Amino acid sequence: MPTQRTADEAEIRQQINKIAEGIRVKDLDALERIYATDVVSFDVEPPLQHVGVAAKMKNWANVFTFFKDVAYEIRDLDVTVGGDVAFAHCFARLSGTLGNGTATSGMWVRGTFCFRKIDGVWLIVHDQASVPFDVQSGKGVTDLQP
Amino acid sequence: MPTQRTADEAEIRQQINKIAEGIRVKDLDALERIYATDVVSFDVEPPLQHVGVAAKMKNWANVFTFFKDVAYEIRDLDVTVGGDVAFAHCFARLSGTLGNGTATSGMWVRGTFCFRKIDGVWLIVHDQASVPFDVQSGKGVTDLQP
Repeated sequence: MPTQRTADEAEIRQQINKIAEGIRVKDLDALERIYATDVVSFDVEPPLQHVGVAAKMKNWANVFTFFKDVAYEIRDLDVTVGGDVAFAHCFARLSGTLGNGTATSGMWVRGTFCFRKIDGVWLIVHDQASVPFDVQSGKGVTDLQP
Repeated sequence: MPTQRTADEAEIRQQINKIAEGIRVKDLDALERIYATDVVSFDVEPPLQHVGVAAKMKNWANVFTFFKDVAYEIRDLDVTVGGDVAFAHCFARLSGTLGNGTATSGMWVRGTFCFRKIDGVWLIVHDQASVPFDVQSGKGVTDLQP
């Protein structure tokens, strides 16, 4: 018999897989169901934070405008669960074809997802995604491989 | 009577305050006691990740070399606890005086701290800190205020 923790971890991995699938098929409604209404998101691009699911969804809508075809690859996903709180980290990469037909292999970002189990469903209440920053050059570092 | 969750949240806030205090007094040993031995850290600067507390401490040692006097300011700290797992997010800023005497007001970063209660002590097992990245210019965005 799987323990509750094992079952919860499986559900959280499913939720993260749903992000990848929701991006691939550009399904904003499916993505929205994975976030808490009051999610606080520290995303790759400015501003410092997106507060609330509407702001987070606007961000995904921008991605879908930018890419004609898009994929979201996840590597090294690690999940930690305790009671009704969990977190996960991984590397993730958006890649695909831009609106002008240019293919882009994208860049690897570091992803942290923080969950609460709300009414029986694991929802993202906080996340952070970023590329490293080179202080000397002032540039983001986008060519690192996990 | 405070609930266990309230007590745990207070302990986690104390641990995060110890980071700020450990940085201020440049106490690497005090900082080391806040991290799990197998911490996975996605830090502001490259590489993509620091694995293990020794790598994380090397990073703090670099900060202490860079700054003659240093302060770590925390804003908007939010803590979520469940059982023996917790996470927190905030904005944080390193500022101070460089080795050459130049004062720097630093930059605000987004911070996410993920904890496990190990042998009765809340330790950071994962963290992520970053500035936003401007895709068009390729630059890190370091002038935003929380």
